[in-house]
Parts: sequence; C-alpha cells; structure tokens
Amino acid sequence: MRTSIATVSLGGSLTEKLAAASRAGFDGVEIFENDLLASPLTPEEIRGRCADLGLTIDLYQPMRDVEAVPVDEFGRNLRRARHKFEVMRRLGADTVLVCSSVSPLAVDDDALAAEQLSQLADLAQEFGIRVAYEALAWGRHVSTYDHAWQVVEAAGHPALGTCLDSFHILSRGSDPKGIEDIPGEKIFFLQLADAPLLAMDVLQWSRHYRCFPGQGGFDVAGLVRHVVRAGYTGPLSLEVFNDVFRQAEAGPTAVDALRSLLVLQEAVGVAELPAPVVPTGVAFAELVTPDAEPVSAVLGALGFVRAARHRSKPVDLWQQGDARVLVNTGPAARRDGTGLAAIGLESPDPEGAARRAEALLAPVLPRRRAREDAPLEAVAAPDGTELFFCATGRPELPDWRADFEDVQHTPAASDIRRIDHLALTQPWHHFDEAALFHQGVLGLDAQESVDVADPYGLLRSRAVTGADGGVRIALSVGAAPADDTVHAQHIALDTRDVVAVARRFRAAGGLLLEMPANYYDDLAARFEFADGELATYKELGILYDRDAYGEFRHCYTRTVGRVFFELVQRDGGYRGYGAANAPVRLAAQHAARRLTGG
Amino acid sequence: MRTSIATVSLGGSLTEKLAAASRAGFDGVEIFENDLLASPLTPEEIRGRCADLGLTIDLYQPMRDVEAVPVDEFGRNLRRARHKFEVMRRLGADTVLVCSSVSPLAVDDDALAAEQLSQLADLAQEFGIRVAYEALAWGRHVSTYDHAWQVVEAAGHPALGTCLDSFHILSRGSDPKGIEDIPGEKIFFLQLADAPLLAMDVLQWSRHYRCFPGQGGFDVAGLVRHVVRAGYTGPLSLEVFNDVFRQAEAGPTAVDALRSLLVLQEAVGVAELPAPVVPTGVAFAELVTPDAEPVSAVLGALGFVRAARHRSKPVDLWQQGDARVLVNTGPAARRDGTGLAAIGLESPDPEGAARRAEALLAPVLPRRRAREDAPLEAVAAPDGTELFFCATGRPELPDWRADFEDVQHTPAASDIRRIDHLALTQPWHHFDEAALFHQGVLGLDAQESVDVADPYGLLRSRAVTGADGGVRIALSVGAAPADDTVHAQHIALDTRDVVAVARRFRAAGGLLLEMPANYYDDLAARFEFADGELATYKELGILYDRDAYGEFRHCYTRTVGRVFFELVQRDGGYRGYGAANAPVRLAAQHAARRLTGG
Repeated sequence: MRTSIATVSLGGSLTEKLAAASRAGFDGVEIFENDLLASPLTPEEIRGRCADLGLTIDLYQPMRDVEAVPVDEFGRNLRRARHKFEVMRRLGADTVLVCSSVSPLAVDDDALAAEQLSQLADLAQEFGIRVAYEALAWGRHVSTYDHAWQVVEAAGHPALGTCLDSFHILSRGSDPKGIEDIPGEKIFFLQLADAPLLAMDVLQWSRHYRCFPGQGGFDVAGLVRHVVRAGYTGPLSLEVFNDVFRQAEAGPTAVDALRSLLVLQEAVGVAELPAPVVPTGVAFAELVTPDAEPVSAVLGALGFVRAARHRSKPVDLWQQGDARVLVNTGPAARRDGTGLAAIGLESPDPEGAARRAEALLAPVLPRRRAREDAPLEAVAAPDGTELFFCATGRPELPDWRADFEDVQHTPAASDIRRIDHLALTQPWHHFDEAALFHQGVLGLDAQESVDVADPYGLLRSRAVTGADGGVRIALSVGAAPADDTVHAQHIALDTRDVVAVARRFRAAGGLLLEMPANYYDDLAARFEFADGELATYKELGILYDRDAYGEFRHCYTRTVGRVFFELVQRDGGYRGYGAANAPVRLAAQHAARRLTGG
Repeated sequence: MRTSIATVSLGGSLTEKLAAASRAGFDGVEIFENDLLASPLTPEEIRGRCADLGLTIDLYQPMRDVEAVPVDEFGRNLRRARHKFEVMRRLGADTVLVCSSVSPLAVDDDALAAEQLSQLADLAQEFGIRVAYEALAWGRHVSTYDHAWQVVEAAGHPALGTCLDSFHILSRGSDPKGIEDIPGEKIFFLQLADAPLLAMDVLQWSRHYRCFPGQGGFDVAGLVRHVVRAGYTGPLSLEVFNDVFRQAEAGPTAVDALRSLLVLQEAVGVAELPAPVVPTGVAFAELVTPDAEPVSAVLGALGFVRAARHRSKPVDLWQQGDARVLVNTGPAARRDGTGLAAIGLESPDPEGAARRAEALLAPVLPRRRAREDAPLEAVAAPDGTELFFCATGRPELPDWRADFEDVQHTPAASDIRRIDHLALTQPWHHFDEAALFHQGVLGLDAQESVDVADPYGLLRSRAVTGADGGVRIALSVGAAPADDTVHAQHIALDTRDVVAVARRFRAAGGLLLEMPANYYDDLAARFEFADGELATYKELGILYDRDAYGEFRHCYTRTVGRVFFELVQRDGGYRGYGAANAPVRLAAQHAARRLTGG
C-alpha cells in the first residue's frame, strides 16, 4: 500500500520535513495547515517541491468546526472553505479532511450535519476535491467512527466520504470490526497513530503522546486489517502528534516512521519482507578505545586472556568461556574515550538477517571493513551501534574469527561463561524507535519499560530479548538530552560464582564499585541470609535481588571511559536485571565519578 | 509553623539535598528511604550532618504494605519494621510514615488493619517512635483520609496517629472540611504538594507531576486552614515528586520550595509578610550589550531619541513617550551578546516592595551599583533578571533618573506610547517557579499557560499582569534545556498606529521580520478586511488577531543579539498577546536566523 506521513509528525521547517519524508522513502505527505501558513513558499512552490521529491500531497486539513451549525455561521464556513479549496487547487491536493465539530455552536442534529456536509461537498466538487469526514474522539456530538459514517451515508454525496483514524477509534475503545461494514470506496483516507496506554484526558493524550504503530499499546495492525477487508485502497498515513518528535531531527524520525509502517504492513499481510532471523547469542562485544591499556587491565583482572589478534587491524580478541570482547584501537576509536561500538550477534542466517535489516531501512555497512577482511554482514542500529550478523564455530558458515590469528596465551579462567546482556544508552529522542528497531529488525521481544530514579533525573529502561535468553539488550535513556553521555553503556558477564570472580578481580588489582553500608542493612531487613553471606556481599559490593523465579547477584567494575562491566550470577531462572538495585548503583556511580573527577 | 521538605523533592545526592534545604532556610527534612540507602554516610553521620545544618529529621518512610495482611506476612513486616526502627534510632527520627497498603495480600478488614497497626505502634514505642498512618489515593482498601482516621481511631493507640497529604486528599476530590473533626494531636504529620489539574491516572499524576503549593490547581491553602483549625502544630512538609525537579539543581529548587510555603502560610493566615506592593507600570527596560551600535540603530529607527546619559556609567537612556530603554555597555554586558538584563518597575512604595521580595527569598541586590549612584531598591528574579522598584516623576519619591544627565536631542516621535509587555525566556527547570515568584513577590496575576508550536519543539508561555494592564510580563520556556538560548527575549512597544510606526521604521532603514504570504491568504479566509488593509499588513509583516474584546495588530523587528522588539496596537480592549500567530512568527524567526547564520 502507499505510505504517507503528516508533516506535523516531524520537526523543523516544511521544506526540512518534505526532504526527510522523501529521503526515508514515503510516497506522499499530508500537509498540516500551520506548516503551510508558516512557509515562505507559495502553494505552487510547495507543489513543485513535492513533485521534485517524488511525493504526492495526499491530504490537507484546513477546516475546523464546519457542520451542524446555525445558517449564518455555516455561510462563513463556506466562505472560508472557498478560500481553502482555492489554496488546495494551487497545492494540487484533492482530499480535504473535515473533523467532527467541537464548537459550542454545533447542535446535535445528524440531518443538519449531513445536509451541510453535502453543501460543502458540492463546493468541493467544483474544485475537484473530495471531503473526508472524521470523528474526533472528543467531537461535540460526533465522536465515534460509526457515527461519522452514518452522517456520511445519510448525506449520500459522491464527493463526501469518511476518514478513519486509529487513534480516535482505539482511544475510545470502539470495536474496529464495524469498519468492514463501510464500503471501501467511501473510506477516503486512513490516518494511523499508536499511543502508550495511559489513563489520561484523551485530548492531552492525543496532542502530546501519540507514537508510531508498534511503539504503543494499540492493536493498530488489527484495525488496518479491518480497513483492508472493507476494500480501502488509499494510503496508510501516519499522523502522530508527539512532543519529543517535534524536537527531534526530521531525518531519523522519518526513517523510524516508515519502518513502523513496513512492520505494520507485514503484520497485516499486505507486504512481504524477508523473514526475521532471530539471533541466538552474542558472539562478541567490541570496544573502541584510543588506549587499550585501561580496558585490557580490567579484562585481564576479570580472568580474560588475549587469545587472538586481527590479521590486519589493531584489534585484540579477549576471551573467557564463550564471552568474547574485542578491543579496537583503530581509527574508529571515539574521541570521547572508550565506548561500546559494535555487537556481534550469533545468527542462524547472517545473510537473511542483513536482508531483513536492509528491507527495514537499517543502514547496511560495508561487508568488508578492509580489503583483506572476510566479508561480514553488518548494519547500524539507530543509536549508531554496529550490529554484525555472524557465526562462531559452525562449519556450514564462515567463522568471523577467520580474520584473527591466535596469539600465545595462558589458559583463561573459567568462571565467566558468556555475555549475559549488553546495556546501550539511546539518544534522547529515539528511545521508542530503538525498541521498535530491535523488535522489527532483529525479531527480539521487548519487555515492559521501567522508570529508574537516578539522583539527577529519571532513567527509562527497556530490555529486548531473544526467546531463550541467548540475547539480552537493555536499552536506556536519560531524562533530558544532556544525559546522553552521563549514563555509561555496559557489558554484563554471566558467571557461575560472582563472589569468586569478584574476589579474583579485586586480588588482581581491579576496582569494584563500592556500595553503601545502608543498602546491606536494608537487605537484612528484607531477606534472610546465611551467616556471613551479607558480609561477603558488602565487602565486594555485590547487590542482591529475587523474583518469582530465582535469585540474582551482581556487582560492577569502575567505569572506563564510557563503559563498565557488570558481573552477574542468575540462579533458578531469575528473569530481570536487578532494576530494584539501580538507584543505589547509579548513586554509587555518580559518587565515584565525583571522586575521580571523571 | 515549622517548614520541612522531603529529600525526594530535590535533585542530587543526599548531602547535596540537605545542604540545599538548609541554605534555603528549611527547619527540617523528611528523609526518603532510597536517598539513605544510596548514601555512603551512616545513619549517625546523616544525623550529625543534619544537626550541623540546623535541620531536624521530621519523618522517615521505609515501610510499605504493612497492615491488614495474613499473620505470617505481618510477622515478616514486624521483623522488617524492627530493622527500620533501629535505623531510625540511629538517625534520630521519631516519626515513621506508613502508607495504606496496596498489596494484593491485603484484605478489606478495618479491624485487622487497626489491630496490626496497634502491634506496629507497640513495637515503635519501644524505640520512642510514633507511627503516622496515611491513606494513599490508590490504596487497596483505604484510600481516603477519613477512612485512614477511622482505622487510627479504632486502634486507639497513643503512638499511632494519622498523616495527611494534600495531594492524596485533593486528587481524590475529598472534602477537606472533615479534617476539623480529627483531634489535632492525632494528626502526626502534614505533607503538602500541589498538582496541575490533569485528567490522568492518579498514580502517574502523583509520581511525576506534583508541584509546590501555588504552582498547581489545588486549593492547598484551604486544606491547611482546616488542618490548623483542627489544632495541628507539626511542620508543613513538602513532598513533591516531579520529573523536572529531579533534574534541576537542588539549591534553586529548595528556595522556590520554601517561597511557596511562605506564600502559603500568608494565605492561611499563620504568618505575616510585608504586604505586596503591586507595580503600576514599567519605568524602563535595560539592555546590556558589548556594542551599543546595533541596538541604538534599531531604537533610532523606531523614533526613540537618546535623551540622557548616566552620570558615571556607560548607560544611555533612550525615550519615546513613556517608553524608556536603557542601553548599558558596561561590564555587565553579557558575553553572549545583547540581552535584556533589568526591568524598572514603577512602584507605589519601592522600599515596601523590596522588603516583601526579601521576605520571599529574592536575592536583594546592592542598593547602589556605584558609589555616586542614588540608592535604588532592586532584587533578582529567578531567571537572573534584575528588578528595580522605582519612581518616575513622583515628587514624594526619589526619581531614578536623578543619576542621568540630559543630552541634547531632537524631539522623539510620538507614536510609541509605552512598553506594552516584556517577554522573558525562563531557564528550563524553573518555569512554574517563575510564575509563582511574579505572583507572590510582585503581586501580579498569572494567566493561563499556553502551549505554542515552534517548528523545533513546543514552547510554553504564561503571562503575569497587573490588574490594570500597567505591567505585563510574558514568561516562556522551551521544550528542552538546549532551547534556553534559542528563543529570544523581547520588548513589546505600545503604539497608537502600528502601520505608521512600521513604515517609519522601515523608511529609516530598520529591518522588519517578514511574514509568509500564505499567512495573509489565511487571514483573508478567516476575517473580512477593508480594501487594501491586508496588502498593507502583508507589505509590513503585520500580524492580526481578534478576541471577544477587541483587535490586535503587531509586527516584529529582526533580532539583535538575544533581543528583538515587537510593535503592538491594541484596540477595543484586546487582552491577549497574539498567541495564535506565534507559530508563524517563530517559524519566520527561525528562517531569518538561518538566512543570516545567526
């Protein structure tokens, strides 16, 4: 189906918005009236710009409070409509949206509404324009889609149809099944938006908290299925009012928006994408750093050994069990110090995974990073992290380690088994999009989003995981743009025995994050422990949590650059990430940073 | 009454919070459990720190889901309570808050609740602790203050009383009058928070949107009056969960918080402050600039003349009618260019105005800025703007112009009559506080807050005005911290005839902000104008608005540094500020800035 986006969904000037929509790959746009009014371009110039960009203008919505009003008021409305239809003629837009009236002048009289909408449609026809009448969820007398359709049906005018809007329908709790009773050719337009399930005044909710399909709590795909069954053949158009999107750069938002429509069309069954290839594990995490020494010291103290070195680049492979960390001191090293730059995902079908990612608009990275390198499928996540789809020790597929040459080393320790999870800090404006990316592109499941109190603001965190826990990625975002760099990324390592690993780490000179004594007093109040157990945790800064499935013990290294390591021990099927301990951990990290001036 | 603040209301580490509360002048604090758990200080050290800072510890709240639970669960709760009471003994806190249970284990049995709370109070007594039981608005079985009091009364235990919380009471819509039926000595504690009137899930509302009394929509003072009449003698304690405050620096937030309690006590009639002295007009606006030339050129083109010069400082007085603008090139000039640094408020009693401001914690500025200067009462507003309380041409009071010496000049034009309003950009975290400051300190009325769509985010704007329109200040804030500097401040000048002033300004070489042609097409659709009227507006970039009272015409100069001028013409008692035109104006300013690279 054709895809479209309302300019109000994007930030910036009208021309920035149009360029972003075109670059992302949309077929058309809805022009929001304020964007046109504020633009220095004439309607003809906007039309030309859209044509150059390969965008149709699918809808214009300059009319408010049109119908079911006293006759003199309606006369003024028709006068206004004539002006606006003239603008639309210049713009080359042939569908006008008319939302159900919220005016205190409107009367509860469907026959009058139908009669006046017919008159409006008569006028529209003179300009070659169709009128799409939509029920606002907070419309004064018409607030449901079936009621709006009754009015349209009663009018029986060829240039009058209805516009369906997933937000207005689903926020009212209406059953979208009845959409199938509307003849497809009378559905003139379909606007799509999702929203988180908040109990909030619906007008506020709509104006500020809408999001792209798949990011919220509505079954938008279910609704679209009914609309398709009704025979609708127009575009799927995103109309998303959101405070955050308004501030964000239009380019990435437009890409996220179109990705949500692609995933939606796949769910509805009207588009076919390469099937998801769910990664089964983490092959490696790659750190870039201008100075390998501090990170190598931490890895060494954790019992990792430098097992191999890249044949052509300054990249070391550190290993213990199935946990592999690459330390890259090449030109990719960020100026802002040590950071987590790439993740190797163990993939059953690396090529298929890359094909799906590409179809879902993920930037594909060069398959070879240097001429000598073996080809490796890779894409960029929205936060810039490089994702490699690769295979480790599977004879039927090339092994990514082929580019590495073993170096002589003593055997590694064996307490660390694998990477338990990776925690990635997301850019402020693109948190929800990140979750959608990891779900849609990688086929991971998104868990509930949780708020964590940091001393200097709230942190939102959301995990995306593979079905078997083989891949776990915790996405987090700070409360304000400035926090992008405050909260470090981290690599969590799965241990058999966190106490033993922590002890060895400390004995080897490693610095563990210290936790306050008050935390352990609280643990003593909440749980019962064996003699001496709490004293050990306190000594090593080990935190404790419990859920319905099992127990969780974890501790943290001090931060190196923008990265730290977490040591975790999961027992009995514990499913979480120790979120209950996050406020204490974050405060300890702030305190440590202040101490070291970092 | 004594004043207290919960540490959760402030951002930062526990010690930062305590220092800020003390510096602002609070008498005590409630320690929030997470702040204690995350602190490296022991309870004894926290106690000592508070004592050093002159703060009592008025409340601790480590208990959740205590009452009306099965006996084995209650046994675990008592075990936890013993641990927590021990911490409180070390902390020197003698009141513990127990909120009504939200646990799914809790049963709807008031007698059991009373019996178990009695047992808890028995244990508390051993530690010299009192238990204050409070109804959470979302409590499972006890959710109203009168119900909580019934349970406390039934228990009849000397160490068990109730805690009242304005948010939980007013958010439920409970009538606070019944508070007077509770014996004052059984009200162990009083927590205060206000909130904007949002229709939202009450838990979300409470956790993220509370604000200080006077900033929201609740009648907190009315509630406190009932509590005082009941005979309560404990502290007034602020417990405000707010996402924005968490991110803000603790120091200014604590000052704003205490100011809100002072205004509240005045409203309740339990504290006397110097009476408000409402300013009657704007005596002058002062611009600081490293280079007087660009601003002087604009003022000259607007028909102002340089009428006087400060005797000892590089400050020029530009005048036209009763509009006066000071241009200061002294050391106060900001590095970031031309800015609005001070406002002279015409005050019936400058000394009285300063006394009230000081009583309400406004930093008092030196009365003489230099030795030779006449004394002038001045304070700093929360955004750093200096407010001078002064008199112009009133024989009974010293005239602020005594420091100025007339310079020879041609007569000024006479179309500009006075300063209509001043628009001040507020720091991101302190928007609501700014409104409270202007209301409480200056005695101005705050109008409704409005959201304005800027191309790059939402802008919130709120006007504070004197009763007669003599003083109008528009406070605005961007959608994110980075916007602090994007949106310029401005000086709006009241004209008899905006067209004439705009024409003269342009003829004198002044640059007016150009408005898009589409805007005028829309005006033609919405209103009827005399022949040629719209063409004139379009030529000069004049915007038009209408309200129930009258008409508004306004236009804008290009921005100089961080300041621009607006020319306004109010006819027939128009009350607004042309907010409907703000999106178009903001887009035009963004476009102009891009063109000039500014």
